[in-house]
Amino acid sequence: MPTFRELWDGIAPIGRGANGYLRYALTEPELVLRDWFRNQAARRDMPVTDDGNGNLFAWWGDPWAHDAVLTGSHFDSVPHGGAYDGPLGIVSGFLAVDRLREQGYAPTKPIAIVAFVDEEGGRFGLPCLGSRLLTGAIEPERAAALRDVDGVTFGEALGDLPAGLLPGLDRRISALVELHIEQGRALAVPVGVASAIWPHGRWRFDFTGHGDHAGTTKMSDRRDPMLTYAYTVLAANKEARLAGAHATMARVEVEPNATNAIPSVVRSWLDARAEDNATLSAVVDAVVKRATERAGRDGTELTVTPESQSPEVDFDTSLADRLADLLGGVPILPTSAGHDAGVLSAHVPTAMLFVRNPTGISHSPAEHADEQDCLSGIDALAKVLRDLT
Amino acid sequence: MPTFRELWDGIAPIGRGANGYLRYALTEPELVLRDWFRNQAARRDMPVTDDGNGNLFAWWGDPWAHDAVLTGSHFDSVPHGGAYDGPLGIVSGFLAVDRLREQGYAPTKPIAIVAFVDEEGGRFGLPCLGSRLLTGAIEPERAAALRDVDGVTFGEALGDLPAGLLPGLDRRISALVELHIEQGRALAVPVGVASAIWPHGRWRFDFTGHGDHAGTTKMSDRRDPMLTYAYTVLAANKEARLAGAHATMARVEVEPNATNAIPSVVRSWLDARAEDNATLSAVVDAVVKRATERAGRDGTELTVTPESQSPEVDFDTSLADRLADLLGGVPILPTSAGHDAGVLSAHVPTAMLFVRNPTGISHSPAEHADEQDCLSGIDALAKVLRDLT
Repeated sequence: MPTFRELWDGIAPIGRGANGYLRYALTEPELVLRDWFRNQAARRDMPVTDDGNGNLFAWWGDPWAHDAVLTGSHFDSVPHGGAYDGPLGIVSGFLAVDRLREQGYAPTKPIAIVAFVDEEGGRFGLPCLGSRLLTGAIEPERAAALRDVDGVTFGEALGDLPAGLLPGLDRRISALVELHIEQGRALAVPVGVASAIWPHGRWRFDFTGHGDHAGTTKMSDRRDPMLTYAYTVLAANKEARLAGAHATMARVEVEPNATNAIPSVVRSWLDARAEDNATLSAVVDAVVKRATERAGRDGTELTVTPESQSPEVDFDTSLADRLADLLGGVPILPTSAGHDAGVLSAHVPTAMLFVRNPTGISHSPAEHADEQDCLSGIDALAKVLRDLT
Repeated sequence: MPTFRELWDGIAPIGRGANGYLRYALTEPELVLRDWFRNQAARRDMPVTDDGNGNLFAWWGDPWAHDAVLTGSHFDSVPHGGAYDGPLGIVSGFLAVDRLREQGYAPTKPIAIVAFVDEEGGRFGLPCLGSRLLTGAIEPERAAALRDVDGVTFGEALGDLPAGLLPGLDRRISALVELHIEQGRALAVPVGVASAIWPHGRWRFDFTGHGDHAGTTKMSDRRDPMLTYAYTVLAANKEARLAGAHATMARVEVEPNATNAIPSVVRSWLDARAEDNATLSAVVDAVVKRATERAGRDGTELTVTPESQSPEVDFDTSLADRLADLLGGVPILPTSAGHDAGVLSAHVPTAMLFVRNPTGISHSPAEHADEQDCLSGIDALAKVLRDLT
């Protein structure tokens, strides 16, 4: 059986550039990773099924017999992302199966390793697209119409209208365990168990002003939407700090984006997260209020459009407690990152295992977990799969 | 002879999109406009010469005989720019020649209509590239190495190393008159004469931080360069207002520019202009100082690189006075926009005619001059060319 290092080094070059990974859903690097997934499954005599939504499943046992236990994650990355966010969960899944087989273990329920499509929303803009489709959280027609930056729709990339909700979801799946690199410098031991996912969302801010010559237009004649945007960036940061929440405006599109032209439009996205829904709403409301007031002073206009909102996820408490005990009393901790496991948790008992991230850095080429901690994660995952089946 | 409306409507569709003009130097639309230039010259039996720098000249009289009088402007636009900035000066040049010929006028000096290359710097980043080359203000090797966003160099686009300084420039050219749409809502009558161009420049600001997950990274752990950028946008605006100058940060590039990833790098350009060099330096110094202080607080780093600096231009005062008198006492006014005429003014007597712009809007699809004012501009230009030859 291959070692972690062998599998990991095998996929490391795929989609890696000078400045991190570009593994967008259903683009060349991610398609190569999907081929790798099929090859790994074939080597283990695990049949692969596709749910018609772009999610792949490699089966130890009878595909979609009742009460399957799922593990896995996603291959896609954010733009210029790291190696671990997503792929670690899939690689660990295959290696946990290897370990159980070496032990001569015979599961009483089917085990499937899953690769969800476009978890980051890096290509089609909506995070957890595959798990949302699988659970019926988004209509197939709406998902099919989502476009990437080149205008290609998800339906075109998939080659079909997505299948949507998996019939008999809650009978077919008895549990999902997603293993993932930890992302908040919140885990001081190799492995932990998730308690909850903070509620979070994305809001699009369209700041509209008056395109004009940057050299000649008097300051008092300007309606510069970049000013309103800049003020909003700082306001979002301040409001989040005051509330103990997280808020970021990290993506911006400017028209025309020329050195000597006052923009006509600045578009940005607020990513906001908080411990509970009330805090999140309060932060977003405060940012919108302050941005709107500033727009009034700048002579610009602001439209805010919620693009995705994920309510608070509390993972199955008894399952989390049981797994933490099983693993020798490891910590149970919340996360502010969204995950496919969060989407599934509304339908089936769901848990997450976190692997320590010494710097906390994620969504960056510097994202890293030590090999020894990854091996501990695989051990833990094998124990958990054994316990659940 | 064609009317203004006929010529104007003939070029209006070239490079026009749903959201303004994209007429970048030596790209398809600008090459079509160059063909149009050659055709207009041919119809008037005006031979066309090229100075080896990408600048075109249509001659009434002997090309490069001594003491030529030049008029003209440029075809290229800023991204999503307007119809008038540049092309109005070239179209008016041809129509002024038509008018003088109808009058049976025989100039004693050669008259040339010139189309300068990449005045806006919209493609290769350095404004007034053609006039800088012609006057030796930039080395041909450095100009040849400038790259557009696709990595194509100016040398490749031109098909050769630029020729650089025109030998005998000050003997060959006795005067240049550039007609241009006014851009600051500063002209209440159809036509005016330029007194000066404010000193101005572009400075690149590279804000470097720490790429990380926007959802999970604690606010206190962040080194977010977008915050430093946002603060600098507002600081530049404030410093310019206090000094009676103009400052704008209208172009921004973000890595990775993803909704859920704190940027590792934010890059922007400061466009700053002021009435005199001392004020300009004071504004830029103040912006850099405040940005650097903020970078210290944000845990980010800032590098500032001057990309182009144009000193104050005082157009030939006696020429301006004479032309204003000739045109019946029209106003003499400064501008804060750079022009090829400003670059030439260091070498030959140079003047500019401005045509009224009722809203002052420029570098925008909404840029506009009334037809009647354009006709007044052509009349004025014909009078001026007659006076100078």
